[in-house]
Amino acid sequence: MNKNSSNIMALAPNTSNKRETVCIFGTGDFGRALGHKMIQSGYPVVYGSRSTQISNLIPKDAEVLSHAEAAQKAAIIIIAIQRQHYNFLVPLAEILHGKVLVDISNNLKLNQYPESNAEYLAQLLPGSRVVKAFNTVSAWALQSGTLDASRQVFVCGDDVEAKQMVMNIVRALGLTPLDKGSLLAAQEIENYPLQLFPMWKFPIFLSLGLTTFFFFYCLALDVIYTYIYEKNNFSFFIAITIPNRVCPVMALILLALVYLPGVFAAIIQLYRGTKYRRFPDWLDKWMLCRKQLGLIALAFASLHVVFTLVTPLRAFVSWRISKGIISQALNNKTEPLNNTNAWISDCYLALGILGFFLFVLLGITSLPSVSNNVNWREFRFVQSKLGYLALIFCTAHTLVYGGKWFLNPSAYKWYLPNIYMLSLVIPCAVLVVKFVLIFPCVDKPLTQIRQGWERNPKHSE
Amino acid sequence: MNKNSSNIMALAPNTSNKRETVCIFGTGDFGRALGHKMIQSGYPVVYGSRSTQISNLIPKDAEVLSHAEAAQKAAIIIIAIQRQHYNFLVPLAEILHGKVLVDISNNLKLNQYPESNAEYLAQLLPGSRVVKAFNTVSAWALQSGTLDASRQVFVCGDDVEAKQMVMNIVRALGLTPLDKGSLLAAQEIENYPLQLFPMWKFPIFLSLGLTTFFFFYCLALDVIYTYIYEKNNFSFFIAITIPNRVCPVMALILLALVYLPGVFAAIIQLYRGTKYRRFPDWLDKWMLCRKQLGLIALAFASLHVVFTLVTPLRAFVSWRISKGIISQALNNKTEPLNNTNAWISDCYLALGILGFFLFVLLGITSLPSVSNNVNWREFRFVQSKLGYLALIFCTAHTLVYGGKWFLNPSAYKWYLPNIYMLSLVIPCAVLVVKFVLIFPCVDKPLTQIRQGWERNPKHSE
Amino acid sequence: MNKNSSNIMALAPNTSNKRETVCIFGTGDFGRALGHKMIQSGYPVVYGSRSTQISNLIPKDAEVLSHAEAAQKAAIIIIAIQRQHYNFLVPLAEILHGKVLVDISNNLKLNQYPESNAEYLAQLLPGSRVVKAFNTVSAWALQSGTLDASRQVFVCGDDVEAKQMVMNIVRALGLTPLDKGSLLAAQEIENYPLQLFPMWKFPIFLSLGLTTFFFFYCLALDVIYTYIYEKNNFSFFIAITIPNRVCPVMALILLALVYLPGVFAAIIQLYRGTKYRRFPDWLDKWMLCRKQLGLIALAFASLHVVFTLVTPLRAFVSWRISKGIISQALNNKTEPLNNTNAWISDCYLALGILGFFLFVLLGITSLPSVSNNVNWREFRFVQSKLGYLALIFCTAHTLVYGGKWFLNPSAYKWYLPNIYMLSLVIPCAVLVVKFVLIFPCVDKPLTQIRQGWERNPKHSE
Repeated sequence: MNKNSSNIMALAPNTSNKRETVCIFGTGDFGRALGHKMIQSGYPVVYGSRSTQISNLIPKDAEVLSHAEAAQKAAIIIIAIQRQHYNFLVPLAEILHGKVLVDISNNLKLNQYPESNAEYLAQLLPGSRVVKAFNTVSAWALQSGTLDASRQVFVCGDDVEAKQMVMNIVRALGLTPLDKGSLLAAQEIENYPLQLFPMWKFPIFLSLGLTTFFFFYCLALDVIYTYIYEKNNFSFFIAITIPNRVCPVMALILLALVYLPGVFAAIIQLYRGTKYRRFPDWLDKWMLCRKQLGLIALAFASLHVVFTLVTPLRAFVSWRISKGIISQALNNKTEPLNNTNAWISDCYLALGILGFFLFVLLGITSLPSVSNNVNWREFRFVQSKLGYLALIFCTAHTLVYGGKWFLNPSAYKWYLPNIYMLSLVIPCAVLVVKFVLIFPCVDKPLTQIRQGWERNPKHSE
Repeated sequence: MNKNSSNIMALAPNTSNKRETVCIFGTGDFGRALGHKMIQSGYPVVYGSRSTQISNLIPKDAEVLSHAEAAQKAAIIIIAIQRQHYNFLVPLAEILHGKVLVDISNNLKLNQYPESNAEYLAQLLPGSRVVKAFNTVSAWALQSGTLDASRQVFVCGDDVEAKQMVMNIVRALGLTPLDKGSLLAAQEIENYPLQLFPMWKFPIFLSLGLTTFFFFYCLALDVIYTYIYEKNNFSFFIAITIPNRVCPVMALILLALVYLPGVFAAIIQLYRGTKYRRFPDWLDKWMLCRKQLGLIALAFASLHVVFTLVTPLRAFVSWRISKGIISQALNNKTEPLNNTNAWISDCYLALGILGFFLFVLLGITSLPSVSNNVNWREFRFVQSKLGYLALIFCTAHTLVYGGKWFLNPSAYKWYLPNIYMLSLVIPCAVLVVKFVLIFPCVDKPLTQIRQGWERNPKHSE
Repeated sequence: MNKNSSNIMALAPNTSNKRETVCIFGTGDFGRALGHKMIQSGYPVVYGSRSTQISNLIPKDAEVLSHAEAAQKAAIIIIAIQRQHYNFLVPLAEILHGKVLVDISNNLKLNQYPESNAEYLAQLLPGSRVVKAFNTVSAWALQSGTLDASRQVFVCGDDVEAKQMVMNIVRALGLTPLDKGSLLAAQEIENYPLQLFPMWKFPIFLSLGLTTFFFFYCLALDVIYTYIYEKNNFSFFIAITIPNRVCPVMALILLALVYLPGVFAAIIQLYRGTKYRRFPDWLDKWMLCRKQLGLIALAFASLHVVFTLVTPLRAFVSWRISKGIISQALNNKTEPLNNTNAWISDCYLALGILGFFLFVLLGITSLPSVSNNVNWREFRFVQSKLGYLALIFCTAHTLVYGGKWFLNPSAYKWYLPNIYMLSLVIPCAVLVVKFVLIFPCVDKPLTQIRQGWERNPKHSE
């Protein structure tokens, strides 16, 4: 490029085949696991330790020196000690000046300290170049050599060159570095491995609660009622029949709950006349877990499909069918084809199939690798247009299934409605309100508001 | 870039916890949404505006100044104004010298201007460092805080450091920056959000056209013919029976259309004796939408599978089966097992299952995250070898299904063939030609040509 | 990071719209394909060749010069010649000084040479800046314009600026560059395109072997035995019945084999009292292919599900059912509902459905894009907890299916057990040992060991 380019070559100094020495402070579990892995990958490793005696615990090819001696041997120092002991590094500040310090620490709780460990380290040693890395990898996975979990290592730091050096090590260990920007991102990176599906908690508890309620509701109506009033023991309904009633109900309700917050948001915006005020907190949270609600709904819908498809294989169903056929045969008559029944049965199945098909399509587009490949116009087209179509099909599927039973008093055992009737309340409400929102007289001001227009600019925050 | 760049090379200057001030030119919808989001993420925001009066429209924590004053307060200036007003920035050139200008504009049409907006801005202000970013994010998504669409922000620019600064902001807003290289990529990035599934258009219209044709073809043969000549009202066939005839036909034809262009390409290359001449345009376009054709074929195949599996649940089918059984019972005889029928029925089903299984495998490997993890040898192995196997299985499935009906004149209502016969034309043609192409006497020259050999070097372009 | 960094800022010099000239050494297939593609993307291309006569082979818009002349015209030189001819570049060392040399070569075998081709080139020309790139792209894909395979181009090199320049070209050609770090990664990148599913080989051969064995085992017991002793020709069982016995057996055994190495590892660690010693090689390899084993198990399970669901559509099954019904009708009696049978049949189906559901969930989380979005706590929760739950459900499914037959001597044709009994051996063993490992008296020391505690520190490596 130009004559100066030779200087740039300092950037990746390992032009020779030899890897640079790496220093590790601390001989705890993670320090040892990382050392093992680095030695395997061809890095000379030197440990910095208070006592140089415990050499039998650490990898045998590694050297053990005092902290000061070890630090002088390497340009990169991995700080495998806990945050509360960071203070002891302060006297070493001069030796550590200009060195790359890799903070790999994790906390026990989310946001345990006001600033992240890496930022705290950078404050203690302002002359060093701190990089956050490796905290998202488990020592066990590193040690066992079977990195079955994610191979991504989040890296952040204010010094681009230092970050490059650490990322080269990450790559050499067979992992994938992911640059998360400046050291400000350390807090987020330190919180990352502490989470266990944070966005899934509310949707899962909601589903479990509703499922339990509907299960016992069905148990009462289908098994206990039948046992008391008709003296039939249908206890085996617990295995398939009742799950196959609860699953579609859950799928339909959860799918409607995906679209309900959008309807609320539209109403709130219309009422306020502006989009520049934040929604209430509950609505914000609800909108953020719509994807999770939708995926759980899809899981219930899939179970419903499989439970339905195995119907002909069930001993009970075979028995019921053959009983029907034998009674016709014994009565010497064949029933003619009931055209209305054929229509209802086929419509009901076809609507369900189409609804489920669109549902699966929505699920596929929510896979991260697929949604990253579509722009937001495409994403909204799929998730909004196709999503409503799926909701319409599924609601119609349930309505046709119910058919004429709605007005039939025998469908109301103990004066309670069947659960598929309960399941229709929210979807129908969502569809009716959405239908109103589509009318030009409502849609036009809403569109204007969403494009930034405000009814009463004075009231905006 | 220039001598001033060394100052900027403090590359990530926000070592202190305080974020750097960001200036936004323009108080339109996107400018305000971005400002809101930045203030939420801890950035001090200052707006540059012609009139500093309209402060009630913009976020209340933001300052509003004249353009010149605002620009002096920040190193990064977001240009949230439309391209046609870029001219007014020229008088500010001196103040903007060395500053990072973030072009976030979009156009209304693909390739509306000869050069991209970002390149135009860079030409107007040669002393500034222009970065293209944020145009792929929707204001609505930013504002509502629910970034349900893709979180990817494409960033491009000629100045690496300026790009880093913008990418740090992108990360701080909770989005994922994706470096697209130099400012030359701006055109592509500006076109990106204007597209609505560009590669899917032709395959979808083709499928819709063919589906409509086959639907009415079936309607005529199965419902109208039966109504006229056999006085049976099978109108409910519209719901399941006819879709379940159209779907497999569409799946098979579209799958064959995936492999047809490859066969054409081979023939053209053999004829020309070189691979160094471009294919005709129609063939190029066809080859580019093979993946989409295949995925639509998979959708039809999946629908066919579900439509088939619900067969035993249909009222019409139950009625037909019980009618058959009752008539046997009334005639006091049981038919023996027909071994040929059992073979045909099981083969037909097994071939279909295997074909569908391979089809789904092809679909899974075409997921972006899966295909990125295989090299091209592996990809071609799956898509070519397994793909042809799937085509063979599916064609055989249809052939066995047809069975002996091909020669049966009663299968030709109104002298028209059943649609599954029509569906076999293209697949059989593809398989026969492919079979010929595998012969060593054809395969050898073709392989040579594809490795760069040319029959008549003179004629190459 | 230091005063030289300002020089680096020349980094993206193509501020003007004109692309920089690229030189290609070598007019072989890949050189020509790459040249074509670059000219299409707007790059002036100049070829360096021994003879400047063969101009009709190369793209017509390209210039052909001697090596020395061509090299002087460009900052980037693509070395499209084979490794054994690299020597001839040595005399050009002075001209190539400071130039970016792009090594695109591949080898014919894995690890053919002690050092990678790119490192060899860097050793020959220490003054040049070598970048490895493009070797993972196929010439055919480049030429045909239909990059149906992965668009990822792995790039590595010691010079950051040179790498940036090459990555800009990669992006301009419509491909996605992926920075793999320093030139040390070249070996890995050169091996990459030579692989054909390396991790899949053992699992696939194991599955093929076991499948063949079980197929003939079933053939003997179900078809040949029946033919010899019961004079029934059930040869059509080959199409569906036998596959549907082999598939679930394979799925269960392979799923158990996924969890068996983890159990072995725990026992070995307990016995050794440390986790800091490597597992035996066979165990390491086994653990590395667990994901592949699991996915093949899922494929077998999916086939089993579809094979089972088509049961009611089979001619043989219809015949058997109608025979049963007719014989009841002719005997003028209807069997009452057998409540135990109803329970067993429904339990068996419900357990299978739940097991398969969890299995599919495991499959989805093993998609790269999904597993990249979970941290290792989440990943282990899903793969370990849900995985064992799936194994428990599937084993219970098989046990309930077997039911009372285990003690029935007629189930042992030729004194051989039915294959579903064979399939239960490994899963039951895994579950029993895992159950023992959960006991606190065993689990506590194991957890300690996995956190780094050692029983006999002296014995550690």
